[in-house]
Amino acid sequence: MNIAFIGMGTMGAPMAENILKAGFDVTVHNRTREREEPVAAKGAKRAESPQAAAAEADIVITCVSDTPDVEAVILGDKGVLHGIRKGALVIDMSTISPTATREMAEKLKGKGASMIDAPVSGGSEGAVKGTLSIMAGGEAADLERAMPVLNAMGKTIVHIGPVGAGQIAKAINQVIVAGTYWSVAEGMALGLKAGLDMEKVIEAVGGGAAGSWGLSNRGSFMVNNEYPLGFRVKLHRKDLLIALEAARELGVPLPMAAFVEQVENGLIGRGFGDEDVSAMARNAREAAGIDA
Amino acid sequence: MNIAFIGMGTMGAPMAENILKAGFDVTVHNRTREREEPVAAKGAKRAESPQAAAAEADIVITCVSDTPDVEAVILGDKGVLHGIRKGALVIDMSTISPTATREMAEKLKGKGASMIDAPVSGGSEGAVKGTLSIMAGGEAADLERAMPVLNAMGKTIVHIGPVGAGQIAKAINQVIVAGTYWSVAEGMALGLKAGLDMEKVIEAVGGGAAGSWGLSNRGSFMVNNEYPLGFRVKLHRKDLLIALEAARELGVPLPMAAFVEQVENGLIGRGFGDEDVSAMARNAREAAGIDA
Repeated sequence: MNIAFIGMGTMGAPMAENILKAGFDVTVHNRTREREEPVAAKGAKRAESPQAAAAEADIVITCVSDTPDVEAVILGDKGVLHGIRKGALVIDMSTISPTATREMAEKLKGKGASMIDAPVSGGSEGAVKGTLSIMAGGEAADLERAMPVLNAMGKTIVHIGPVGAGQIAKAINQVIVAGTYWSVAEGMALGLKAGLDMEKVIEAVGGGAAGSWGLSNRGSFMVNNEYPLGFRVKLHRKDLLIALEAARELGVPLPMAAFVEQVENGLIGRGFGDEDVSAMARNAREAAGIDA
Repeated sequence: MNIAFIGMGTMGAPMAENILKAGFDVTVHNRTREREEPVAAKGAKRAESPQAAAAEADIVITCVSDTPDVEAVILGDKGVLHGIRKGALVIDMSTISPTATREMAEKLKGKGASMIDAPVSGGSEGAVKGTLSIMAGGEAADLERAMPVLNAMGKTIVHIGPVGAGQIAKAINQVIVAGTYWSVAEGMALGLKAGLDMEKVIEAVGGGAAGSWGLSNRGSFMVNNEYPLGFRVKLHRKDLLIALEAARELGVPLPMAAFVEQVENGLIGRGFGDEDVSAMARNAREAAGIDA
């Protein structure tokens, strides 16, 4: 089976390598062409455009940054749409708008091709280790065809629903991350201002109803006011904007997600956009005068 | 060692029974006296007032509802303060104001007695099984004296800091519960309005950065819009008010905790105050028109 993989970023490059390792024929493309080289050195072919990459592929995977990037790769000049074979499958693993996803799926259908949205969580570490969580939207038959390739990249693969459902699940993931992390940041500000040993508080409350991945894995970042990656604030803000746009279309108010998006907006403006998203605790700490 | 236990409520009664089972002599008192009977039937003595209960005790435990209740039991007519022996120890396991706690500790000190604040989490199930998490504030030597008795009631016992620190840790616990549950409720509203199978979404996102006790253990309540106990909305609202008061005294803004307190205020007004605190999802669902 021939796999085209478009997008050799922090996520895409190791994901493509894992597909190679699983024994598939892989053709890669990246807008900045030299980023293709490390994966090509390990056995991938290179294509000069998304169109060219798609021309020979049974499955075309895209993993780029944002909605306009996926639209350029799929719909643009020399885009996948102009090269895709009848019966081929596109798997978009970027985190983008569910509405734009459904529109692209319709256009690909016009060429006899189908599409799955399959955004991931688990970060660059999960991409390297092949342990990503994959939230998939699409037809069951298409997902079945995709499984051997998805299994090379991920550990937990859940079929959420029809095309776009994977993107909505990812949006939900980011909304929950926003509020969970912020609640830890508020609790942290209260305890630090009161002079408590917050590592002890994390120990005391982490096993009960207040427990979360964020508290256990990012609480210490917030105590120390240092936020190594992780997942960048500016990428999380991008994902929250997707969630807020989807919520607007659906008529769902998300007051907490909107609040955290504003917090992250300020963090990016102050130059903290490349820190881990737990850096939102900077705001809670500073508003309490802890770092004054 | 003689233990006095004041407050035979849903929490206090099984906690006192566990102390009895551990082999201590226990004297109980409750404002509504007939509530003493089940524990007395298992071997506890009864006292007609907090003062009388304290008169023979090495350790006096209080476990009642709110700050004024503890103040009445400790400082009121026939309160513990008027019966306490020199060198005795008071352990307050209620969830109350850290400031009021420190004031009572001072007054007890005037009688040659000391005090530990030791609020708990883990609910009535934890009280029955003796698996509570106990967040303790006080002198290390006092905590050491208390340990044999605390071990009869709890599994995780953490010494957070000086008198009042246990209450602040409990306030932090409730602040984090508020935001964590609400973030799950927002994500839930987005997914339900989009028509997703939310059990699948919980499966897909629960193991990653969005994961929390609330998502894993209360997510299904929110999907089904049914909120069996659990921990009552009205008790959580009481605890949030304590947290907000402590935050006001310390100069710490808690915008999310204040928001959730308002949500719970409305729930109580609509007659949902005895549901589990995850009932805050009613607001997120209804604001999105899901139950219309």
